[in-house]
Amino acid sequence: MHFPLPQRRHVLADEGIPGVFPRVFGHEAVGTVESVGENVETLKEGDLVVPTFMPECGDCPDCNSSKSNVCSGFPFTVFPGMLRDETSRMKDSKGEVIHNFLNVSSFIEYTVVDVASIVKVDPAIPPEKACLLSCGASTGVGAAWKVAGVELGSTVAIFGLGAVGLAVAEGARLQGASKIIGVDLNPNKFEMGKVFGLTDFVNPKECGDKRVSEVIKEMTNGGADYTFECIGLASLMNEAFESSRPGWGKTIILGVEMHGAPISISTLEILKGRSIVGSLFGGIKTKSDIPILVKRYLDKELHLDPFITHEISFTEINKAFDLLLQGKSLRCIIWMEK
Amino acid sequence: MHFPLPQRRHVLADEGIPGVFPRVFGHEAVGTVESVGENVETLKEGDLVVPTFMPECGDCPDCNSSKSNVCSGFPFTVFPGMLRDETSRMKDSKGEVIHNFLNVSSFIEYTVVDVASIVKVDPAIPPEKACLLSCGASTGVGAAWKVAGVELGSTVAIFGLGAVGLAVAEGARLQGASKIIGVDLNPNKFEMGKVFGLTDFVNPKECGDKRVSEVIKEMTNGGADYTFECIGLASLMNEAFESSRPGWGKTIILGVEMHGAPISISTLEILKGRSIVGSLFGGIKTKSDIPILVKRYLDKELHLDPFITHEISFTEINKAFDLLLQGKSLRCIIWMEK
Repeated sequence: MHFPLPQRRHVLADEGIPGVFPRVFGHEAVGTVESVGENVETLKEGDLVVPTFMPECGDCPDCNSSKSNVCSGFPFTVFPGMLRDETSRMKDSKGEVIHNFLNVSSFIEYTVVDVASIVKVDPAIPPEKACLLSCGASTGVGAAWKVAGVELGSTVAIFGLGAVGLAVAEGARLQGASKIIGVDLNPNKFEMGKVFGLTDFVNPKECGDKRVSEVIKEMTNGGADYTFECIGLASLMNEAFESSRPGWGKTIILGVEMHGAPISISTLEILKGRSIVGSLFGGIKTKSDIPILVKRYLDKELHLDPFITHEISFTEINKAFDLLLQGKSLRCIIWMEK
Repeated sequence: MHFPLPQRRHVLADEGIPGVFPRVFGHEAVGTVESVGENVETLKEGDLVVPTFMPECGDCPDCNSSKSNVCSGFPFTVFPGMLRDETSRMKDSKGEVIHNFLNVSSFIEYTVVDVASIVKVDPAIPPEKACLLSCGASTGVGAAWKVAGVELGSTVAIFGLGAVGLAVAEGARLQGASKIIGVDLNPNKFEMGKVFGLTDFVNPKECGDKRVSEVIKEMTNGGADYTFECIGLASLMNEAFESSRPGWGKTIILGVEMHGAPISISTLEILKGRSIVGSLFGGIKTKSDIPILVKRYLDKELHLDPFITHEISFTEINKAFDLLLQGKSLRCIIWMEK
């Protein structure tokens, strides 16, 4: 397994995820199949695979519909066990259970993942690129591609330029957006985001007396066609909504609200033809869409390389956490073998 | 002009609309063109026309896009004057101005309406049916047809069975929904709604300890595909949202929140692939879509007749207000000539 360390603090800070320990973290990864269980027919030893926290059972109404990527065969929960039976397959040297994490548990040399959460990918993709598609990059690109359906020449505003927000920019760039505005407190993000298609930047600290939404409305002649919240703050979800254009403006919520607060939206403003939609994993149907993203990477359309800001060995994993907490990394690849 | 009296109390109770008097109310109507102003080329004397509070200038980005029906050439406001110049064309016997209402002012024998707010319709439609398409019936049918895009075999829940809510049912019936659940405190509405396709009914008073959304989830195996709020209460907008299915559930807001309160939505629930969209006039592009509805009425597909519960003469208009305030009418046709 190789895996990037996602720039999300929920788990480290124990926000929202049940605090069950001991546990093997990690949910963005790539690996090679070492062996398969009984009745598994779609994978074989040696396959290059990307595990995902989102299962795709293939049999439920959601998996059989093009409108949903939220498998109802295995409803999403954050319980600390395996998908089908809620047990763990890991024990410590004393025989005590070590819990699972988000169906993946990748901070480990060997893990057991349910076949519903495994995507076989073209082995031509280098593993350190493939693992980026295990969650963050797919989520952002998918939100622009599958959920928003960004169109040629449209305008986009992205609140929060972590890896997910930058991946939204990349998705909007691939869809042909003409103006892609990033909003972030860190001014370095504009330069970092240009390769992903960012054309404009708003630093909320530099908006003076104006709300960010007022500034974006001025930049887009009345509001952006598509706005994305990639942080997880209800107040910013509202600001993203206010930044959207009457008539057809669509706000896509990707961030998991960090305090569990609700979104509060003006009823008069939504009546003007606006909409809000939530998205888990960017609307990506893992088993069919991740291979498409792999192909687009191999065809040199999709940028993945610039997400990798650091690479370290597994024995140095605590350095990766430091970089994460310091906000210095987009994605830090952790190599098992090096 | 003939016109139905809409079952909306905002104006009588002076909620949300500037209290400017004296004024000629009325915004749902049909009439015959008596004369046209300079440069008007699309209408001529004798045309049967439906006025609408929603203008369609035909030139702005919204009018030229299939995604919006909210004309930005003439942004929607509730100011009490004509569309283009904010003046009124009506005076009393002393020469004092009598104000306009919602671009229409139809409680009068002759009115002046901007060409952007006039839709020419097939004169084969009886006037008392045509006037129903001037706002309420179009709004409801359009919300199911144009905004939701209700599909064959889908499930629908409608909060509030006034004429607009019943028109949503009619729209969902035409789109082929298999289950159309009405929610109303008045049990008579189930019987009234069956002709519009209502298949099931929930009376919130009879839900015991359960929330309406829990009851609807049980009736629809986890939530309706499409839910509609047709009352204008933030708490019901939330309940409609909670009644929608994870994965692809869509909530359409038609009601104008009567206290100006915001909608409050769970961020975790919207992340599961749900969406909320607001709709003015049911997404109807007046000049192209109202003629389609007229054709569907003439082809005996669209039910309009059952909306007409009362018919009176203009001199009895106060009886129509009584019926409205008593909640006894769906639509009361007021005849000028009778």
